[in-house]
Amino acid sequence: MSKETNRQILLAARPEGAPKASDFELAETSVPAPGEGELVARTIYLSLDPYMRGRMSNMQSYAKPVEIGDVMPGGAVSQVVASNNPKFATGDILFGYSGWQDYALTNGKGFRKLDPARAPISTSLGILGMPGMTAYAGLKNIGEPKEGETLVVAAASGAVGSAVGQIGRIRGCRVVGVAGSAEKCEFVAEELGFDACISHRDPDFAGKLAAACPNGVDVYWENVGGKVFEAVLPLFNHFARVPVCGLIAQYNATALPEAPNKIPVLMRSVLSNRMRIQGFIVWDFADQEGEFQETMSGWVREGRVKYREDFVDGLENAPDAFMGLLEGKNFGKLVVRVSPDPTQ
Amino acid sequence: MSKETNRQILLAARPEGAPKASDFELAETSVPAPGEGELVARTIYLSLDPYMRGRMSNMQSYAKPVEIGDVMPGGAVSQVVASNNPKFATGDILFGYSGWQDYALTNGKGFRKLDPARAPISTSLGILGMPGMTAYAGLKNIGEPKEGETLVVAAASGAVGSAVGQIGRIRGCRVVGVAGSAEKCEFVAEELGFDACISHRDPDFAGKLAAACPNGVDVYWENVGGKVFEAVLPLFNHFARVPVCGLIAQYNATALPEAPNKIPVLMRSVLSNRMRIQGFIVWDFADQEGEFQETMSGWVREGRVKYREDFVDGLENAPDAFMGLLEGKNFGKLVVRVSPDPTQ
Repeated sequence: MSKETNRQILLAARPEGAPKASDFELAETSVPAPGEGELVARTIYLSLDPYMRGRMSNMQSYAKPVEIGDVMPGGAVSQVVASNNPKFATGDILFGYSGWQDYALTNGKGFRKLDPARAPISTSLGILGMPGMTAYAGLKNIGEPKEGETLVVAAASGAVGSAVGQIGRIRGCRVVGVAGSAEKCEFVAEELGFDACISHRDPDFAGKLAAACPNGVDVYWENVGGKVFEAVLPLFNHFARVPVCGLIAQYNATALPEAPNKIPVLMRSVLSNRMRIQGFIVWDFADQEGEFQETMSGWVREGRVKYREDFVDGLENAPDAFMGLLEGKNFGKLVVRVSPDPTQ
Repeated sequence: MSKETNRQILLAARPEGAPKASDFELAETSVPAPGEGELVARTIYLSLDPYMRGRMSNMQSYAKPVEIGDVMPGGAVSQVVASNNPKFATGDILFGYSGWQDYALTNGKGFRKLDPARAPISTSLGILGMPGMTAYAGLKNIGEPKEGETLVVAAASGAVGSAVGQIGRIRGCRVVGVAGSAEKCEFVAEELGFDACISHRDPDFAGKLAAACPNGVDVYWENVGGKVFEAVLPLFNHFARVPVCGLIAQYNATALPEAPNKIPVLMRSVLSNRMRIQGFIVWDFADQEGEFQETMSGWVREGRVKYREDFVDGLENAPDAFMGLLEGKNFGKLVVRVSPDPTQ
């Protein structure tokens, strides 16, 4: 990588179904120079997250879609290489939504400095960043887990799910994970300390999930949708809560399942169990960021919450890694190493 | 009706699909005599409500099913004809769950005295009773309507829906009803003052509903399920709330609709709109009964909330009337006149 080149990954086309390589374009421009009040930062770590699939489509959602030809959006850890902004100095390590590119030009709005002495800087993309905050705030405000309840967590080895389940354990719940392979399930149960973990690829997935939840399900953390949701549906207890955080199994779908329409089953469960199903995004709880940082960094320091990162090297490999993420090929928080970590 | 005979309507068989006459049995026994601490009350008005369909089935729900051979359950207004209970005197007018029968024997638990001077005693089955309280508490605690929002109310001419919509108007909402005929819609719009009302039997129901909600839907009061829910689904705004009170269109269903499985559409809306869908029953808010009685009776006195009762004469006609209720044949709160109202 030459200092004179800024590689950017652009949205080349809106995906039909699963994104493919041709939906992305690697462009090269020159490294920008900061104007008045601006700074330029070199990307160190780029976060890849399922929500980005939604941004690639031209559908109504909580965020505006990316335009064709725009740099793909994303949170990243970066280092200031030139600054005309008095709040940021050359060498500062930042977190901000600087996108899929080697260098970002910004006025600094929305960027914050990281303290490398506090935690590995990559964790600001995972357990101490948006995914960890999503888990913390969504579980606290919508899941409302109580001691002795059963919490089922979809995508349990992922960045959000792994945190949700560990917080549930701290709150005294029986925690049952759902993940995409025996290897992931072993990690979830053995390393993260979930009470059980079932692979959704198991031929008897629904039966094993039911057996792992002998007292029914009080909280279901929805990250996935599709068959995982439908396997949990018969298990809900009275007053069950379903924080809807993501629906990764649906993001690439181009048609509805040709099956009986199960909305009546779902609504009957909502009514007869007096359930609550509630969607949210992490920004809905932005005022709890300070509480989250303090609590979660304490848990991580004490070893009560563990995290796993899945590093991919090279910005040019971000599209492939992202396509794999949507198929569950990652194992832990997916992070692209774009340039060397100067704190290591 | 002889004083010596107590007619009772029993559950004869669990319905398959829509209840039919043979699912009920009219039995005659003698009028009971009160034992120590007991009283006997003659039924004046019997309430018929959609929830009773659920009690006839042997499915898991919030209430235990009725057993075959049991008297059909239901709230009623009655008058004490004999009492060995110091809290109740002969002649007292009561409300209680005394069931589908001429006379009820009870120890008085769960019964309360009505003051005929306060309001017509039949209203304790409707606007000042369980349906009114359902509307009041469900809308306040789950619907949370705000001034300027759009509230869509299913089964808008019914006992609950008519109250929900009028409360919504008092709260400053644009209120759009859905009802089952042009005549009902005219009543809802003209008499009850909803901003609009659409018949779900209109061939262009979904289109007309969308046109009546130019600013989308913030609160949808779910009484019905099925196609009404699916017509509202594309209209939800961010942070929409759906109190799930009933699903009358589903109660008689024996199979799921053979259509694409639309759970993914629903869950996508929940996520991208950060919606909340929540089931409840009126007893969840029992502590708000006093507040409800005070507020609602004030609104009724001031003419701000109107109600319509649909009277059917004769206990023997209760099964037919109930079967009609499940098909939307009633028009207003369905009440069976079992014996003459002594307050009129």
